[in-house]
Amino acid sequence: MRQSTFLVPTLRDNPSGADAVSHQLMLRAGMIRQSSAGVYSFLPLGWRVLRKVEQIVREEMDRAGAQEMIMPAIQPSELWKESGRWEDYGPELMRFKDRHQREFALGPTHEEVITSIVRDDVRSYKELPMTLYQIQNKFRDERRPRFGVLRGREFLMKDAYSFDRDFDGLDESYQRMYEAYTNVFTRLGLNFRAVIADSGAMGGKDTHEFMVLTNIGEDTIAYSDQSTFAANIEIAPCADEYSQQDGEAEELREVDTPGQKTIEGVGQYLNLPAERCIKAVFYEVDEELVMVLVRGDHESNDIKLKHVLDAGKVEAASEELIRSTGKTVPGSAGPVGIEGEVHIIADNAVKYMVNACTGANKEDVHFVNANPGRDFTPDRYEDLRVIKEGDPSPDGNGTIQFKEGIEVGHVFKLGTKYSEALGATYLNNEGKAKPIVMGSYGIGVSRTVAALIEENHDENGIVWPKACAPFDVHLIAINSKKEDQRELADRLYEQFSQTGLDTLYDDRAERAGVKFKDADLIGIPLRVQVGKRAEEGYVELKQRANGDAEEVHVDQLASRIGDLLDL
Amino acid sequence: MRQSTFLVPTLRDNPSGADAVSHQLMLRAGMIRQSSAGVYSFLPLGWRVLRKVEQIVREEMDRAGAQEMIMPAIQPSELWKESGRWEDYGPELMRFKDRHQREFALGPTHEEVITSIVRDDVRSYKELPMTLYQIQNKFRDERRPRFGVLRGREFLMKDAYSFDRDFDGLDESYQRMYEAYTNVFTRLGLNFRAVIADSGAMGGKDTHEFMVLTNIGEDTIAYSDQSTFAANIEIAPCADEYSQQDGEAEELREVDTPGQKTIEGVGQYLNLPAERCIKAVFYEVDEELVMVLVRGDHESNDIKLKHVLDAGKVEAASEELIRSTGKTVPGSAGPVGIEGEVHIIADNAVKYMVNACTGANKEDVHFVNANPGRDFTPDRYEDLRVIKEGDPSPDGNGTIQFKEGIEVGHVFKLGTKYSEALGATYLNNEGKAKPIVMGSYGIGVSRTVAALIEENHDENGIVWPKACAPFDVHLIAINSKKEDQRELADRLYEQFSQTGLDTLYDDRAERAGVKFKDADLIGIPLRVQVGKRAEEGYVELKQRANGDAEEVHVDQLASRIGDLLDL
Repeated sequence: MRQSTFLVPTLRDNPSGADAVSHQLMLRAGMIRQSSAGVYSFLPLGWRVLRKVEQIVREEMDRAGAQEMIMPAIQPSELWKESGRWEDYGPELMRFKDRHQREFALGPTHEEVITSIVRDDVRSYKELPMTLYQIQNKFRDERRPRFGVLRGREFLMKDAYSFDRDFDGLDESYQRMYEAYTNVFTRLGLNFRAVIADSGAMGGKDTHEFMVLTNIGEDTIAYSDQSTFAANIEIAPCADEYSQQDGEAEELREVDTPGQKTIEGVGQYLNLPAERCIKAVFYEVDEELVMVLVRGDHESNDIKLKHVLDAGKVEAASEELIRSTGKTVPGSAGPVGIEGEVHIIADNAVKYMVNACTGANKEDVHFVNANPGRDFTPDRYEDLRVIKEGDPSPDGNGTIQFKEGIEVGHVFKLGTKYSEALGATYLNNEGKAKPIVMGSYGIGVSRTVAALIEENHDENGIVWPKACAPFDVHLIAINSKKEDQRELADRLYEQFSQTGLDTLYDDRAERAGVKFKDADLIGIPLRVQVGKRAEEGYVELKQRANGDAEEVHVDQLASRIGDLLDL
Repeated sequence: MRQSTFLVPTLRDNPSGADAVSHQLMLRAGMIRQSSAGVYSFLPLGWRVLRKVEQIVREEMDRAGAQEMIMPAIQPSELWKESGRWEDYGPELMRFKDRHQREFALGPTHEEVITSIVRDDVRSYKELPMTLYQIQNKFRDERRPRFGVLRGREFLMKDAYSFDRDFDGLDESYQRMYEAYTNVFTRLGLNFRAVIADSGAMGGKDTHEFMVLTNIGEDTIAYSDQSTFAANIEIAPCADEYSQQDGEAEELREVDTPGQKTIEGVGQYLNLPAERCIKAVFYEVDEELVMVLVRGDHESNDIKLKHVLDAGKVEAASEELIRSTGKTVPGSAGPVGIEGEVHIIADNAVKYMVNACTGANKEDVHFVNANPGRDFTPDRYEDLRVIKEGDPSPDGNGTIQFKEGIEVGHVFKLGTKYSEALGATYLNNEGKAKPIVMGSYGIGVSRTVAALIEENHDENGIVWPKACAPFDVHLIAINSKKEDQRELADRLYEQFSQTGLDTLYDDRAERAGVKFKDADLIGIPLRVQVGKRAEEGYVELKQRANGDAEEVHVDQLASRIGDLLDL
């Protein structure tokens, strides 16, 4: 491609409003342009990278036996009402009416559509298992689109859906997709982890998020520094491996703590470290009041509480509800003396506390020297806190570290949520109708492009890995006005094109400095610079990643390029 | 692909409501499923064909030097207001509001978006010419979606836009696209013509529609039986090659024609053939009354009238307007005696009429023996009628025939309509700002798939041309229960897959009749049937197009398949 008429409008300066490095570089390298908030065009250079990533995804999906198809973006509201998501999905679902006032949504995902197809067209156990996928623009009306294509309102996604006879089959389909995803992100050279995630609103069971560990992102990942363990901090389990605290049990006594309503305040007032205090947190769990105890230096985790109690709804309890018990007060609550009156459940760490401070269930009064087992016994001990950096990894290997993560993929066991709601059944080998067991699997293709840049750049621009570079070679005539340079560059361009080497040829009448700056910004792996030694047949071959440069005679050029690109 | 778990739900019977053959066959062959009116999913088999057509389009666009990119479906109303199309486009434009009540459209085409990108990012004449394209789902809220994917509301389209310094450049860009389109449809083996079309609402100048000539369609094409001439009958020019009618001029006289208000009625009443009668048709052209004269066996053409008079608006005149002249009456109107009073313009054919009958501008009275030149002289003679079958081709070669046409492509000279509206200028070599000159070029990719089926089917199903068949070979184990057949078929499937032959393998436990029927329906070019002679190593190789069958030994099979598929 000749750069003179190739639409790659590079920018000198960082555009205002672009916070993420990938967003800045995609704009500056002329890969994307914004059309409206969170909505982008991919210009030819960006399109080339998008296609390379898409193709790697496709190859791995095909290799895993998935069948490609394509569903429409326009989805009728009726299907979403069948699944219940027309109400549940909220304002992220873009809705509109057609000329006949019928309601539609722009697909953010396609569980309903694919389930309706399978409902109508799959009959027998003989046709299962089956995994279908598509690569398509999706629509989500994000409240706050940001970071360029990392959180957009229209974005390219690969979504796949598996259909099995039973849950064992689902486990196998899920595992195949899990492996395919691992292959995709490994081929792209990303630093990623498959992270245990919360199933959230999708209504499924097992779920993993494929997260690229980086310095930007909307999730925090707890991972082990010595194993593959990784989980979203929202649900990362904490090992029940605490040491008993020091000291002999002393006598329980009340102390006045005037005006102290927080653990920090009480601790300071009594000169006690946070890990010697018990925090009592109240939740309303399916309309029942629950007191959760955690160590003062820990945070309670409502998602874990929800799982532990197998609850529908978990919310912070209102002061009114707490007071309505008549047994305790907010700000001075604790487990002592109210067992049997309030449902009390404690984090495992509380079990190992000695001479703890806790609320006395009277305004401005706390206990000190409270000891579990002696002074109080919660209904149960469970893992109920948020994991912390420095915690032991729950798999027993290494220590927990935190890093920001970009979610590039998500695998999900849906079970029969959609097949039951929409009536997608098959006849088993005894002729009995059974609900099809489903999984759903997404990869954010455009988001992956941004994640690649977050991981592969330096202060001068993008540094594309070979697997997804927009071109193999950036050919530069350093001074296009010099006939020998232009002629040799033209000849090499011709030759590269004939041998199938994807080449961007900077044939512009620009100064060398401008060309080099643009080349660094665009980040093509290999640069062939035709300069002063053109007449002798020598060019400079430079690697973007490490800056290594060598003089190569044109006779050796093809072979040397082949070596460097592993062709 | 093993057919047992491949989602290709064939149907025995024609689905109700599917009128077009292509629609029936796409449903029956399990290529598509309807999601809502005019909105379809392409199942894996349909997807494969769609991708093959898309790839041919892409290759020819790339070969023509166009650059691929991708723009969003979501378009902000602001851009459409700049071009004026937010008002003009009407209810076909699907509109919606986001969560912040901002207005958007789902792109039916992308002139506005691409022009805004080029406006911001193309500066200099050095960057032109440039042609950009994308392949993407488009949205049009058709009043009456029908014929399956032939007229849908969401459909796959390739749209391209050229940007030039001037109109000479546009002519070249247009010609390159014209040739690329010719290559695409030639490679697909379609019986097509590039048809001169009316520029209509797009606001451009030259325009050609690429029409597949077939038995279904929404346009009628006039084409020559001996040349490449073809035009939409709405605008097909008529050669000014008429013979003078027989006879000597006789005396003009009035005759009573009580109650006869139509040409047919007057002709019958006076026992005159239609070609001896002059039809006077009144139009209101930009608020002026115009009388158009055509021969009684011809139809007047308001689109030609609009072009001839370079008019803004042409409508049938109201009876009130006609009577308001005081010079003529509807039903008995004619040119005699009112020259200078009413604007009269005649079709060329009228010039050659002898002793014609025409209205006398009095109720229930006509003239006979009216002769042009002697009894009346219109303000001008022009080509003002609709072409007819049997007319001489206007290029001088052959005779005009009519056929229905499916529009699969459209090339269009936009000029500066959008660049001026949106302010897309470039600096010429003298540093002066000039509007960029644009062209726009579309191919309906999903519609082309349907057109291919309209042209390539028989009573048993689809007959895919090799260039766009979903698979190369349909491998069938006639009786999967017989071990020797299954084993040989398995072995061939393995072998085909390894050699890159795209194979659909019917491994189902179905009766042979069911398998053959499905194979005919799906229409893969070559069928390999493993049957009774499996043990001897013989299979039957059958061509879908002509039904030719031959027994081939497996050792010769690969080579024979290669011959038949031109591999």
